[in-house]
Amino acid sequence: MEPQEDEENEEAMSERIVVIGGGAAGMSAAAKARRVNPGAEITVYEKSGYVSYGACGFPYFIKGDIPRVEALIVRTPEEFARQNIRVFVHHEVLAVDPDARTVRVRALKHGRTFTQPWDRLILAAGGRPSRPPIPGLDLAGVFTLRVPEDALAIKRWLVEERPVHGVIVGGGYIGVEMAEALTAHGVHTTLVEMLPQLLPTFDADMAAHVLDTLTRHGVDVRLEHRVEAFEGRHGRVRAVVAGGRAFPADVVIFSVGVRPSVELAQQAGLRLGPTGAVAVDDHQRTSHPAIWAAGDVAEVHHVVTDKPAYIPLGTTANKQGRVAGTNAAGGEATFKGVMGTAALVVFDLEVARTGLSEREALAHGLQAQSVTITSSAGAHYMPDHPPLHVKLVFEQGTKRLLGAQMVGRTGVAKRVDVVAAALHAGWTTTELAALDLSYHPAVAPVWDPVLVAANVASR
Amino acid sequence: MEPQEDEENEEAMSERIVVIGGGAAGMSAAAKARRVNPGAEITVYEKSGYVSYGACGFPYFIKGDIPRVEALIVRTPEEFARQNIRVFVHHEVLAVDPDARTVRVRALKHGRTFTQPWDRLILAAGGRPSRPPIPGLDLAGVFTLRVPEDALAIKRWLVEERPVHGVIVGGGYIGVEMAEALTAHGVHTTLVEMLPQLLPTFDADMAAHVLDTLTRHGVDVRLEHRVEAFEGRHGRVRAVVAGGRAFPADVVIFSVGVRPSVELAQQAGLRLGPTGAVAVDDHQRTSHPAIWAAGDVAEVHHVVTDKPAYIPLGTTANKQGRVAGTNAAGGEATFKGVMGTAALVVFDLEVARTGLSEREALAHGLQAQSVTITSSAGAHYMPDHPPLHVKLVFEQGTKRLLGAQMVGRTGVAKRVDVVAAALHAGWTTTELAALDLSYHPAVAPVWDPVLVAANVASR
Repeated sequence: MEPQEDEENEEAMSERIVVIGGGAAGMSAAAKARRVNPGAEITVYEKSGYVSYGACGFPYFIKGDIPRVEALIVRTPEEFARQNIRVFVHHEVLAVDPDARTVRVRALKHGRTFTQPWDRLILAAGGRPSRPPIPGLDLAGVFTLRVPEDALAIKRWLVEERPVHGVIVGGGYIGVEMAEALTAHGVHTTLVEMLPQLLPTFDADMAAHVLDTLTRHGVDVRLEHRVEAFEGRHGRVRAVVAGGRAFPADVVIFSVGVRPSVELAQQAGLRLGPTGAVAVDDHQRTSHPAIWAAGDVAEVHHVVTDKPAYIPLGTTANKQGRVAGTNAAGGEATFKGVMGTAALVVFDLEVARTGLSEREALAHGLQAQSVTITSSAGAHYMPDHPPLHVKLVFEQGTKRLLGAQMVGRTGVAKRVDVVAAALHAGWTTTELAALDLSYHPAVAPVWDPVLVAANVASR
Repeated sequence: MEPQEDEENEEAMSERIVVIGGGAAGMSAAAKARRVNPGAEITVYEKSGYVSYGACGFPYFIKGDIPRVEALIVRTPEEFARQNIRVFVHHEVLAVDPDARTVRVRALKHGRTFTQPWDRLILAAGGRPSRPPIPGLDLAGVFTLRVPEDALAIKRWLVEERPVHGVIVGGGYIGVEMAEALTAHGVHTTLVEMLPQLLPTFDADMAAHVLDTLTRHGVDVRLEHRVEAFEGRHGRVRAVVAGGRAFPADVVIFSVGVRPSVELAQQAGLRLGPTGAVAVDDHQRTSHPAIWAAGDVAEVHHVVTDKPAYIPLGTTANKQGRVAGTNAAGGEATFKGVMGTAALVVFDLEVARTGLSEREALAHGLQAQSVTITSSAGAHYMPDHPPLHVKLVFEQGTKRLLGAQMVGRTGVAKRVDVVAAALHAGWTTTELAALDLSYHPAVAPVWDPVLVAANVASR
């Protein structure tokens, strides 16, 4: 249990907590605030029709592995109500008045607006898909993927319209996973990416394995193709023009990144950080003493660079939400930051990363170098021991670890976590190489690939 | 590359390195010594007919997953010869003279003995199966499992004699895995264990999952059964008498632990430690300045207890061997010690541990407590998300981590490694809970089970 501070007199009155946004950050904050302060009045406003859902499961729902989108709901508004947390879906917060300590809310179903006072405010407005001004982006059949309504719309389109050709715009996590989902529906899928590689948070050499896998599974990947327009007929998409040619498309997934939804923060005069997201301290407090921010609307402290970063991920949103909720409810909690640990599964490939890629490290002015080794996730003599590629990024001279990227069929994500722990501890490659890691022929060679890479890096 | 010290004058002459034992420790030492000192004369004597083999693969060879035992050989004597390392198999070292700096060797094939001088000696004599004086232990069909010859003999017996009933004596790693191997050959298998639980390095609650799995796969497990005798006819085993009753047995695997083979060390006057194995410092040096020891013959420093321990495992043998080889060859390397990290796969269960079990921690006089949680290796909404049981052991008050045990179908061993890193760093449960671990619905819930357990422990 987090230590619960004696509340000051003024704060003892402050018991109306309003949460803007019912995603992972907002609902974690609300639930944690309730545990810390059983007497507070806690109200959540969510613009969409859903709260507390596992957005990372959308591609599996769309693909068909998960039959109903409701399976992705962690807890319903009714379940929150039993904890005495009032959740209003289809309610959009229009404005925040930080001096009067109120929010202006519109009930989207009937259009009425009302004013709700708060003593402490948690801003968890999330992010939204980037939508640069490309002609035809509003055509029917062109989708972004962010909320359950998006996932439902894409699934319905795939089932009802039976598209033959699909185009994914953007080769990040969502784009790559949606390429698999479309392929599972028998859609001939092209993925167009502006950059010369997929997965920009990975180095090109590691991302190349993902390219191979997509290609092997029939996805037509076009790198260095910038989308110029979407062409349609009768309001429906027909083709995507990219790199000077038209790719036929009856369905398009547009996934070129996420931007923090900072409009309310800006209107309320909250300070934004260098990344453009809401600046927060290690208590998730914004520049206003009674407003906390958490999740995809906020910056995050990067443990390796010791600088603010914008890395919108569900894990971070959950943790920041708990910290914001604790502090807003009068408790005391801090968030140490992230290393940008992330994992991805696409077809038969498991991919993960932590810390800085070599490119990122160089961009931060670090004297970075790297080693890449290929080993396997099991002993060489086992009937099945698929290759495992490990790249370690470290500082020249000091050998301080900066990051890791791994690609394989199995045993990837949780091996990356070992390096995440090493980054958290601030170890060198030599210290990582000294670890007593588990060995069993079915799950690791006697020298775990992490140790092999650390040994090579330590030379 | 380890820093290669300027050799002193006396040491510059010292170029005959003899290695006793060609297992993981001895061959790692020889290979590393060669890299550190290209001019040294390096000679390895191995009593069995094999060097450099993956002993942890024996159960898979016996089961039939690996067709030939030679597949377990990492490198052959011929391959070592190409590195100018002379390897003599079927050669037993009879005596060490630490003053004259010689070993007395017998060539087992023709019985000749000879004397080999050395300047630096690496003792990697390994361990041997415990063989308490139980009547009938020498009957045909009763096997221990240590060297490739043992694995071949067991496999041959299973294939040629087609035993109907088998008894495993001892519920440690080998016993449990061999229960699976015998079952795969259609043998009705009983496992008898003296203690009230399987896997004594685990706590009873976690070991119970392994008991369940064995039972579910048809193995008849008898706990608290002490073996009293083996009964035979015409020199062949017929039954195992344990706990006052006779269990029919046409094949017996006797696996009640490993003892260090310290006879040569004792004869040479090397100091043994409190565990009965050869005492070494962090350079793997014994009490004699020109003799190093590594692998199952030696003690190991336990990072969590800060005391010597005897934990004979292949991973440790490899690492100690490299350190011994480096130092014996005039380089400089240290071994930081182990946490007793170990993994096991039995039927569809993956099991792993690191640090101290709760029982071990209490036995060491630590104020230990624990939390056990059940989560899953993937998001709850995924079609397949088998349960994952996590037990964290930590110190009361300080919350310092002491150990972890995990049981599940997948994603177990490398999650334990995250805690191994945390133990190495000396973290509390709160520090572990702050880690940025990877998340993807196919490989982890948004709160990784390690974080869930750490959060519960931190309350």
